[in-house]
Amino acid sequence: MSTRSIPAARYEDRLGRAQALLPAHDASALLIGVGAELQWLTGYAAHALPRLTMLVIPSRDRSSLVVPRLELAAARECTAVHAGLIDLITWEETEDPFELVARLLDESNSRPEIQLGALGGAWGRLGGLLVSDRLWATFLLRLQAVVPDAAFGLASTVLSDLRAIKDSEEVELLRTAAHAADRAITRVATGRLIGRTEADIAAEVRERLVAEGHDEAAFWIVASGPNSASPHHEPGERVVQSGQPLLLDIGGRIEGYGSDITRTFWVAGDGYGGPTDEYRHLYDVLQRAQATGTQSVKPGVPAEDVDTAGRRVIEDAGFGPNFIHRTGHGIGLEGHEDPYIVAGNERALVVGNAFSIEPGIYIDGRYGARIEDIVVCGPSGPDTLNEAPRELVVVRGT
Amino acid sequence: MSTRSIPAARYEDRLGRAQALLPAHDASALLIGVGAELQWLTGYAAHALPRLTMLVIPSRDRSSLVVPRLELAAARECTAVHAGLIDLITWEETEDPFELVARLLDESNSRPEIQLGALGGAWGRLGGLLVSDRLWATFLLRLQAVVPDAAFGLASTVLSDLRAIKDSEEVELLRTAAHAADRAITRVATGRLIGRTEADIAAEVRERLVAEGHDEAAFWIVASGPNSASPHHEPGERVVQSGQPLLLDIGGRIEGYGSDITRTFWVAGDGYGGPTDEYRHLYDVLQRAQATGTQSVKPGVPAEDVDTAGRRVIEDAGFGPNFIHRTGHGIGLEGHEDPYIVAGNERALVVGNAFSIEPGIYIDGRYGARIEDIVVCGPSGPDTLNEAPRELVVVRGT
Repeated sequence: MSTRSIPAARYEDRLGRAQALLPAHDASALLIGVGAELQWLTGYAAHALPRLTMLVIPSRDRSSLVVPRLELAAARECTAVHAGLIDLITWEETEDPFELVARLLDESNSRPEIQLGALGGAWGRLGGLLVSDRLWATFLLRLQAVVPDAAFGLASTVLSDLRAIKDSEEVELLRTAAHAADRAITRVATGRLIGRTEADIAAEVRERLVAEGHDEAAFWIVASGPNSASPHHEPGERVVQSGQPLLLDIGGRIEGYGSDITRTFWVAGDGYGGPTDEYRHLYDVLQRAQATGTQSVKPGVPAEDVDTAGRRVIEDAGFGPNFIHRTGHGIGLEGHEDPYIVAGNERALVVGNAFSIEPGIYIDGRYGARIEDIVVCGPSGPDTLNEAPRELVVVRGT
Repeated sequence: MSTRSIPAARYEDRLGRAQALLPAHDASALLIGVGAELQWLTGYAAHALPRLTMLVIPSRDRSSLVVPRLELAAARECTAVHAGLIDLITWEETEDPFELVARLLDESNSRPEIQLGALGGAWGRLGGLLVSDRLWATFLLRLQAVVPDAAFGLASTVLSDLRAIKDSEEVELLRTAAHAADRAITRVATGRLIGRTEADIAAEVRERLVAEGHDEAAFWIVASGPNSASPHHEPGERVVQSGQPLLLDIGGRIEGYGSDITRTFWVAGDGYGGPTDEYRHLYDVLQRAQATGTQSVKPGVPAEDVDTAGRRVIEDAGFGPNFIHRTGHGIGLEGHEDPYIVAGNERALVVGNAFSIEPGIYIDGRYGARIEDIVVCGPSGPDTLNEAPRELVVVRGT
């Protein structure tokens, strides 16, 4: 995926802020492999490959992007390289890229003002090497072998807070993705459902996510009847029937930025297969909880308070034990990232935070429901990106 | 994705063989996170999540699958759990799953006959903990913290050789995927191409891969004109024109098993935009190299000899410096796995190895070509899974 919506000045700003934070984290470098962090810092949406690609951000001087020669053409097109913000260093098939990274670290570390070699264990003294959170074990173990005295930590300790505040281009990408997901979920739910397997509907979800504007589909939970009581149900061979709920939790990516929407429909069929009073009650509680959580969003509110606000509605109705997960997760270049809307997260929301609000009520063996929107924390309250109706929509499914 | 084609007996066999190999590798346990290795061992095609899912295979006794409670319903449906081959252990949101894994290791390690505690550094003495190769750094660093005396290594040292030999069900999944990719690439190439951007054609590739039977599309290289000289080109806004080559390198997955095919077409248009003699010559050399590599496949032949066989054809024609990558890679639940068809890999091919043969010739700034098939090493020679024509196909593209 290209990242054409994000201008070079953003990457310059991000690289500068990340580097400036290293001393405060007692870190001497960031070592960023392929993934969301690399894309956020450089615009390089690289493929995950067994050959090492690594952005080395030292605590001073210029950063370097180490790539296998085979990836040279792709790497030099990324915004940060193209704009001359970072150096590009290629390695040949006969070279050891880990030794190359170690040399880059040595060079930036051999400047007199930060050299601690005489004391031994320079890296330990100097502070940690912070690797991207999803760097593969195969890479991390090799790095640990070539820089044996270093203390290794996670780059997210520096980057998460920065990435959790979306700039205006990122919010617009999230909004575009959300609207595409709104259209996809509505089209799937208003089509034929009864007599089709979950897996078949899931295939339609994937196609519609792309047809409505996503670069790719990312996930496609289709849970019918009792399967709706399983939060992460894998669509299977169960055939959708009338008189039962159908939960869709779907998302895709546009330029790397994700959509993530959940709606629970009631499939009524042609006869009278409408929802039971019991289910209507459950759904009503859930919808009020989701709205209450959303309305609690504003700058300065601890993330956990958003969880509490909605959860209390569910608890007060006696469904507390049936809401078995946190309220939400941040979203951006990763489907799950900071801030997490969960008990224990006391961090205050700030303008630009983007996250899901997705309470659920699950009655094991019978049915469940979940409603999920992506919400951005605006200056005075929530900016809800999704626009699909949140009421219990009864569909015929025929 | 479900893995319904692989029977429980296969998983029992795989788990048993992996465990039996641990002592010879001086390893006390395998710690397998979400990914291809987990699916190969259990049939569990889990989603990659920030919450830890880990299969713990000790050197003796039963293995345990540690999953977050939220994933219970999905995990218990996987074949190995369903068939009672492994224990399922869930952890609650308030628990530390890494401590849980450490306790499991302690239990299997506290049996008198293998206890070394009195000597200290028991884990170091006992041998390594072998983690799945793509385990995220965030998980590995936590494991290293809770079992500080252990020597960590890669599970691939045990599993790669096992996984590289495909059983009959795996070969049939690869064949089904290959044929779906054959149809997809042919349909895309014989449709309208001229005037469309690479990105637009890539979107069609993704749709066709799924329409032809893949569960999902995995990659979609579309490289036109001079971009065909970049092996891993990212499809962009370049508009396809007549009188130029178009390289498609595409693949998807069926029940986790991948397809991977490359064909290079010549887009002629309505006038005379046929290939130049120079390009015909280049392509002819390449096709002979690809055929020669394929024909060299049989049990007992070192993997590097397959690379050499095709490469020599290219070198003899003077294109040696323009073939800038290895000949191929294994394929199965991962798009790139053992065996690698590359200089230096002296391992002999065995029946059931499945890998790509994909030489390429790249003239920087002008054009390139690559031909790729997936080939299985049969008892007496190559079993080529792909069936799309390998000749230089000239398409109108209008």
